[in-house]
Amino acid sequence: MSLTKLLKPASIAIIGANEKPGFGGGTTKNILTYRKDLSRVYFIHPTREEVYGHKCYKKVDDVDDTIDLAVICTPQPTVLGLLREAHAKGCEAAVVYASGYSEIGPEGVALERELQDLAAELNMSIMGPNCGGFVNYVDDVYSFAFLGDYANKRGGIGFVSQSGKFVIDMMNSPELRFSYALSVGNSRVTTVEDYFEFLVNDPDTSVVAAYVEGIKNPIKFERSLRAAAQAKKPVLILKMGRSPKGQAAAASHTGSMSGADQIFDAVFKKYGVIRVDDMQDMRSTAALFGTLKALPKTAAFASLNQSGGERGLAADLGYMHGVEYPDFSEQTLKRMKELLADYASPSNPLDMTAGTPLNVYFETLAVGMADENVSAGLLGMLVGPNPIPAERMEGFAALAKKFPDKPMMLLNIMERPRNPEVVAAFQEMGIAVLPTMAYGFRAVRHLADFVEYCNAADAPTLSLAIPEKAPSGKTRALGEYSSKKLLQEAGVPVDVGEVVQSAEQAVEVAKRFGFPVVLKIESDDILHKSDVGGVKLNLKSEAEVAQAYADILDSAKQKMPGARINGVLVQKMLSQGIEMILGVNSDPQFGPMLLVGLGGVFVEVFKDASLYPCPLDRKEAEQMLTSLKAYKLLTGYRGGEPADVEALIDTIVAVSEFAVRHKDSLKELDINPLFVYPKGKGVAIADALVILHD
Amino acid sequence: MSLTKLLKPASIAIIGANEKPGFGGGTTKNILTYRKDLSRVYFIHPTREEVYGHKCYKKVDDVDDTIDLAVICTPQPTVLGLLREAHAKGCEAAVVYASGYSEIGPEGVALERELQDLAAELNMSIMGPNCGGFVNYVDDVYSFAFLGDYANKRGGIGFVSQSGKFVIDMMNSPELRFSYALSVGNSRVTTVEDYFEFLVNDPDTSVVAAYVEGIKNPIKFERSLRAAAQAKKPVLILKMGRSPKGQAAAASHTGSMSGADQIFDAVFKKYGVIRVDDMQDMRSTAALFGTLKALPKTAAFASLNQSGGERGLAADLGYMHGVEYPDFSEQTLKRMKELLADYASPSNPLDMTAGTPLNVYFETLAVGMADENVSAGLLGMLVGPNPIPAERMEGFAALAKKFPDKPMMLLNIMERPRNPEVVAAFQEMGIAVLPTMAYGFRAVRHLADFVEYCNAADAPTLSLAIPEKAPSGKTRALGEYSSKKLLQEAGVPVDVGEVVQSAEQAVEVAKRFGFPVVLKIESDDILHKSDVGGVKLNLKSEAEVAQAYADILDSAKQKMPGARINGVLVQKMLSQGIEMILGVNSDPQFGPMLLVGLGGVFVEVFKDASLYPCPLDRKEAEQMLTSLKAYKLLTGYRGGEPADVEALIDTIVAVSEFAVRHKDSLKELDINPLFVYPKGKGVAIADALVILHD
Repeated sequence: MSLTKLLKPASIAIIGANEKPGFGGGTTKNILTYRKDLSRVYFIHPTREEVYGHKCYKKVDDVDDTIDLAVICTPQPTVLGLLREAHAKGCEAAVVYASGYSEIGPEGVALERELQDLAAELNMSIMGPNCGGFVNYVDDVYSFAFLGDYANKRGGIGFVSQSGKFVIDMMNSPELRFSYALSVGNSRVTTVEDYFEFLVNDPDTSVVAAYVEGIKNPIKFERSLRAAAQAKKPVLILKMGRSPKGQAAAASHTGSMSGADQIFDAVFKKYGVIRVDDMQDMRSTAALFGTLKALPKTAAFASLNQSGGERGLAADLGYMHGVEYPDFSEQTLKRMKELLADYASPSNPLDMTAGTPLNVYFETLAVGMADENVSAGLLGMLVGPNPIPAERMEGFAALAKKFPDKPMMLLNIMERPRNPEVVAAFQEMGIAVLPTMAYGFRAVRHLADFVEYCNAADAPTLSLAIPEKAPSGKTRALGEYSSKKLLQEAGVPVDVGEVVQSAEQAVEVAKRFGFPVVLKIESDDILHKSDVGGVKLNLKSEAEVAQAYADILDSAKQKMPGARINGVLVQKMLSQGIEMILGVNSDPQFGPMLLVGLGGVFVEVFKDASLYPCPLDRKEAEQMLTSLKAYKLLTGYRGGEPADVEALIDTIVAVSEFAVRHKDSLKELDINPLFVYPKGKGVAIADALVILHD
Repeated sequence: MSLTKLLKPASIAIIGANEKPGFGGGTTKNILTYRKDLSRVYFIHPTREEVYGHKCYKKVDDVDDTIDLAVICTPQPTVLGLLREAHAKGCEAAVVYASGYSEIGPEGVALERELQDLAAELNMSIMGPNCGGFVNYVDDVYSFAFLGDYANKRGGIGFVSQSGKFVIDMMNSPELRFSYALSVGNSRVTTVEDYFEFLVNDPDTSVVAAYVEGIKNPIKFERSLRAAAQAKKPVLILKMGRSPKGQAAAASHTGSMSGADQIFDAVFKKYGVIRVDDMQDMRSTAALFGTLKALPKTAAFASLNQSGGERGLAADLGYMHGVEYPDFSEQTLKRMKELLADYASPSNPLDMTAGTPLNVYFETLAVGMADENVSAGLLGMLVGPNPIPAERMEGFAALAKKFPDKPMMLLNIMERPRNPEVVAAFQEMGIAVLPTMAYGFRAVRHLADFVEYCNAADAPTLSLAIPEKAPSGKTRALGEYSSKKLLQEAGVPVDVGEVVQSAEQAVEVAKRFGFPVVLKIESDDILHKSDVGGVKLNLKSEAEVAQAYADILDSAKQKMPGARINGVLVQKMLSQGIEMILGVNSDPQFGPMLLVGLGGVFVEVFKDASLYPCPLDRKEAEQMLTSLKAYKLLTGYRGGEPADVEALIDTIVAVSEFAVRHKDSLKELDINPLFVYPKGKGVAIADALVILHD
């Protein structure tokens, strides 16, 4: 299903066109107001002769032209019939505004299914139902029901949202310029993932922004994220459901399956997606990306301010948002000292001190921007409701021209109406007018994250290991030996040990391995071996081994009489290393997710763990580790020896490969603990548990 | 020095009154525009006959009235002479706008000192220099240099700031209503702490807001914080310097001594001060506190929204800011189900679903607000540039009247111009119009913090243990025995052990204590005993003790030949408990600060420590512990025994008392490790180090 006919139609029929308030009236008025070429726009109404002086046809069939897009403005009961009529005319795409579908409960769900079935039968793309329509600013297409000022808004932002309110909010933001604004409602036929994919691949869209309530087609969604990452096209997503209550809200609101929030975070991290927190964050960040003519080469900012207060705020907010202000070079500092008052003390962030003359102000900005250590500028320059004198605006224009590769943005410390002409003039120069500080710095942080993502490594090329079939819901656990065996077969280096059936065998194996050894009960039915007295550590002699064998079986039989016992596992006793946990959980939408963290307390008390989708490469595994707060415990904490991080990375990658190979059967893998030894000495898997879908 | 004459003058002389732009012109115009009673306002100018039709006097002395406040609008060189003239007339207070003082470097610093000396000589209160002046909205006093719209702004917010820009920003915020707005500049004579104290004690000020660059008089500042806490008057402070760079900026900007940022956080926590992050945070939070007619009884909110998008944002942002939405009662849910559409699924946060009729909307709000579990309401109700229909406004007015004790606030999801009349009408009802979400939720978080602070316990009555004299800068460390002895004398339970001078004595003491014992080198010169082989643990026999004694002395003499050795310390070997660290650092401004955290890694890697000023009581000690992320390790982690938290609290309080007793001499105390044993088994101090000012 191509979206071309839907979003880029050459001919349009407005079915239910009229002059009254409502979908028909709004759409008619919008297209007449904003579209230049009306030659292939047709208005359809059963009784009207004309609408705003334009001819009305009784029905679609009366139009003597092919119709690419039928915009159905009439109520729910009329929709199916009109779709059939349009289809009979050769039309392949429609917008359905009508509400009364799944958003009103079970009754509406049935109607929506009917609509979906008909669309499948007729092979039509359909936006909606229960939607606001769209504007395609690129080709001048207005199929939008709500009145507003949509003139001069052509730009690079493509926005798609199930909430019509959010689309209107974005369209009413004077600093935003769009390629497409899509209010797609229930998006039952043509899905959010379809629109999203369209925007990612659309050459007229430079920034993709989406409000996503839930994902129904993870394969298509992931493919689009990957394409955007490879194209280095920024993707902004507002995905609610950070809280347990929010997840419940999202699920009840759309009936979408709402994955655990951390899963989305992990997938977004892999593809450099900018996750925004709310609609203002979306708006500010879209405006920033939409305005800059070039991305900064690095995430290193010059903070150039006109007062001590501004400088203090820039320093603190920058610190809180992790924005980097590198030290200025000696040369820059020397030049600034020459330019500024004696009592100014140049640094980054800079306070030029109050009363700096305009020419000195701009010269100082130029010196700061020219510094070799900085790639972008955060300028303390407030934009309020009043116009800004021409001389000052010209100064900024000259500055922007001088530094085409070092984008600049203006900080603002209060929520104020900002003069739209001033904002537009700055945008014309490629200078972004940031909103109030918390939002401004968040947008800057998002920009820095994106730059760092693009600079860090090549974007992933492999698709996620999304399972091909839904799991049955039944699962079975494997004992430690079987779990380790499965890991070993997949190339994960692990000492599997040997399962024995008698004390004599145990002793024989122990002698072969060398003392000390460990004995453990081996049973698919016993997940918590210690709880049934099924683990004996540090056995140093034949006698100890024989005794342990007997004790383990006795204890297990007594405490779990029904358990099927495969034998007793004999392993070499591992020496203690840094304890880590390494696990995989298979997400029903995005497949196996790998988790790594330092032993028990760190993960459980401090939630210090890193989650990432499979497959992953060494670079990604390394990023997982360095993102841990406890990472410094691996690099030689308090004079200790650095751990064998390379071997740990190898193991993470091998486990990821294991998870990918078993993506359709693996539900869960827990390696706990994994011992990491000093550099050069490798790692060792002490215990492993695999749970499979049955 | 009373501020009454300065801030509440009965008669005012504007010295340098005129009609031109500038300090004189601005002040003249402002007072003429906004002050009703001009009978005791006198305009002084050496050559003018009149100003805006009002009589001008040549000099202050010509005025036939006493003068409470002289507003000196003229440049720096004229200031001292004019102050003398005013003083000769009996005037005790002045505003000095002139710049050219400490803000311009060393030369200005000298001039400022002269001004300060003269003020001391004449015993005058002086605002400034380099300031913008003030407005006292309570008594209708305008000694303010910058033009603006200052009508109808009387309210409860008292704001003081060294930055004039920030004062203007606040005064230009249409939703703020002030008692006082004070732009106090360099505040060399009358200090920020003086104004702050005035506002805290002022009955017309219900919210104290301050931009503080640094504190020069911690005793006065702390006294004011304590008074505010006892009066449950909210105090909002913007204190920059969160980052190392910001601290440097603050120091260079004002020459104020800028304490470590965490010290301020600790002091603010003790007194329930609301620390805001930036000026918009200040503004939003001041507006919230300034609008509500009552504080919520608890920090439990009903979130009542009109759409799924709003509900999702409220859920997520609330979660991110720790805002509590308790579950609605069964009765509330039942009533909501009756009111709302079949497909609505009532919960907190609530989505009423789109298209809810107005009467149902208000009825649902009333049902939600009436719920016994909630104390306040966060209503999804956007305020934009347009007026809101009267019917709707009346609905809110009725709602506010119905719930006088449950304050309500309106959420807004985008940064937009908001209609000032609408905002004012809501404020009249006691309903706060929150700014864009991140700021709105931050303000709500601040409100919740304040409510929780007020509900948690009585405010502290004891003053901080601020040292009475500045330390010499020289310090000396005490050995472990002397350190522990000092703690013991102050009532901290600690086993000090015994210092011995021979192997025989060591053995004798060990036998008395019972084996195993520990031997440690005892020397004020050896801070790191282990590094010189000065510690022998777990000595189980007489022979081991004798050998250890010899080894310790040999090793210490060899590795630190110059160290003065007091002997060898014999102690009972402690059994292992949960390792904690407990320390005190004396802040030069606020005195001893107590730090507590769980052993090494937690404090060092996760920065999981709690800092709090002394003295503190059991309740405060408990709050320090429960604020630790690792606190759960003390309460029986993973089925372990709960630790003796009561004994730990006793020890924290005892250490605080120790620190208070030694506030003038104590520089630092480190108890590391402190072992905490299972419930009922107490704690033990394994090692202690005291560093004193010499």
